[in-house]
Amino acid sequence: MSTASSPVSAPLPSEAELQALMSCAHDLADLARGLSLQWFGQPLTVDIKADDSPVTLADRGVEAALREHLAGRHPRHGILGEEHGRERLDAEYVWVIDPIDGTRSFISGLPLWGTLLALLHHGRPVLGLVDVPALGERWSRALGGPTRHRNDHRAPGRQDLCRTSGLTELSRARLYATSPDIFSAAQFEAFQRLTAQVAMRRYGGDCYAYGLLASGQVDLVVEAGLQPYDYLSMVTVIEGAGGVITDWAGQPLTMHSEGDVVAAASPELHRLALGVLGVLGVLAGT
Amino acid sequence: MSTASSPVSAPLPSEAELQALMSCAHDLADLARGLSLQWFGQPLTVDIKADDSPVTLADRGVEAALREHLAGRHPRHGILGEEHGRERLDAEYVWVIDPIDGTRSFISGLPLWGTLLALLHHGRPVLGLVDVPALGERWSRALGGPTRHRNDHRAPGRQDLCRTSGLTELSRARLYATSPDIFSAAQFEAFQRLTAQVAMRRYGGDCYAYGLLASGQVDLVVEAGLQPYDYLSMVTVIEGAGGVITDWAGQPLTMHSEGDVVAAASPELHRLALGVLGVLGVLAGT
Repeated sequence: MSTASSPVSAPLPSEAELQALMSCAHDLADLARGLSLQWFGQPLTVDIKADDSPVTLADRGVEAALREHLAGRHPRHGILGEEHGRERLDAEYVWVIDPIDGTRSFISGLPLWGTLLALLHHGRPVLGLVDVPALGERWSRALGGPTRHRNDHRAPGRQDLCRTSGLTELSRARLYATSPDIFSAAQFEAFQRLTAQVAMRRYGGDCYAYGLLASGQVDLVVEAGLQPYDYLSMVTVIEGAGGVITDWAGQPLTMHSEGDVVAAASPELHRLALGVLGVLGVLAGT
Repeated sequence: MSTASSPVSAPLPSEAELQALMSCAHDLADLARGLSLQWFGQPLTVDIKADDSPVTLADRGVEAALREHLAGRHPRHGILGEEHGRERLDAEYVWVIDPIDGTRSFISGLPLWGTLLALLHHGRPVLGLVDVPALGERWSRALGGPTRHRNDHRAPGRQDLCRTSGLTELSRARLYATSPDIFSAAQFEAFQRLTAQVAMRRYGGDCYAYGLLASGQVDLVVEAGLQPYDYLSMVTVIEGAGGVITDWAGQPLTMHSEGDVVAAASPELHRLALGVLGVLGVLAGT
C-alpha cells in the first residue's frame, strides 16, 4: 500500500468511487451549512488560539459534527481538521476540513466565510469543495471532471460548470488577498511590487475570493502563511476551472507546503505573477 | 430662507413630509437595485477616474436613472452625485447619491457594494438609506425615528428596528476599514495604534461594514479620505441605531468635512477611539 508521501505513483480512484465520495462531501457540506447558519449572526464567545486566530463554538461544533458523520460513513478514512487535530493521516483517504474558514468574518456578520473540504488519496487532492453558506454558494470538483458552481439563493440545486476568466495580462488583473497582515516584511515588499502592476487590488474575501477566481470574476489571489485546511480544497477547484494554483516558488501545494499561495486565472498570468514575486517568493517562506 | 451652511437653525421638516420623502428614497433604492443587479456579474468595461478610482456603465447608468426619477418627482431638489456632478446645491432639499459604493467589489463579484442615499435639508442630513442589492439588505432612517433594517432574502419586505452592540470596551471591539491604502502615513500610524488595542481588525466591507455596525455585528469603522456621498447617508443611519459617527476630531460630518470618519457602537467607545487616534486625528486631514 502506498503512503501519503507518494502522491504521484498512486493510481486514481475509479470514477464511480469518486462520485460516491463527492456525494459524501455534499452531505458533509449540507450538514455544516445547516449548523453554521444557526450560529451566524448570534452573539458567540470568541476564544483566541495559540496562533492568535479566533475560534468559537460554531467552528468546533461544525467540525465535531463532520467528524461524527465521517466516523459512521467512512470509519477508516483519516481526518485533518482545523479545530480537532489529526487522525489516521497514513490512511488511503484523508479528509482535510476547515469547518469555518474566515472566522473573523463569521463573528462580525460578514457573509464571506465558508466550509472547506478536501479529500486526499495517498496524499494527492482528488476532491475539493468550497461552501459559502450565508450566500448559498458552493464550488466543487472531483479529479477528472470539471469544477461546478451552484447558487442556492438564485437557482436552488442547479449546478453550472464554471471557468476562470482566462486573463493573461497582469495590467488587467483583479487581485485579492485577505489582509496585508498575513505577509512577512519581505513578502509584503514582493506583494507590493506585484500589486503595483495589476488593475486592482482588494483586501478581504476569505475563501470566497478563490470561488470568484474559479468563476471568472477575480484573476489573482495571493496569500501567505495558510494552513493545509485553507488551501488544499482550492487546488482541485481552481485547476478544474482552468486556473493554476501553486506556492510562490511554483511548486504544487501539498500537505507539507509552507502555505504561501498564488492562484491565477491562466498559466500565463500565473507565470507573470511568479516572475514579479521573484526569488523573494522562493525564499519568503523560510 | 436658510442656506445650506446653517444646518443648526433650520426647523425640521414635518413628520408627514419626512415620511413622503422616505417613501421616495425607497423608490429610488428599488430602481437602483433593479438596474445594478442586471449589471452585477456581467463583464463591464472599467474606466479609471481622475482620482484613480474605477467606474463603469453601471455606476453611471444607475445615477442617471435616479436623477431622471428625481427630476420628475422633485424637480426643485438639488442633487450631488458621485458620477454626474452637482445641481442646485443651494436648494432647500439636496439628495446626495452614490449609485454604487464599492465599485471594486462590484467589478469582482463581491456582493458588499451598495447604493447610498442621503437627503439634506438646509445642509443637515435628515434621511439616510444604505441598500446592498446583492444581499437583499437595506438600512434606512428618517430623523426623529429609529433605524430600520430589512433582509429581503430572508424575510421579504419585513422591516426590523436595529441597534448597535452598545459595546463600551475597546479591547472587545470588532473594527473594520475598507483598506490600509486609504490612509496617509500619519493616519496609518494612528490607525495602527488604535487597532493594536481592539479584539479584531478586518479590511474590506465597503458600506456594508456601516450596516453591520448599525445592526450590532461590528463595533468600530475607521476610514479616511471619504467623499460626502460615501458618508452622509451613514450619519442618519448610525445615529438612529444608537451609534456615534464624526470625523477624527470629533466634529459632525457635513458636506464640507475632510472625509476622515470614525463610527462607533456607543458614545464611550467613540470617545476611547478618538482618544487613541489622538491629536494626530485632528491634524491628519490637513
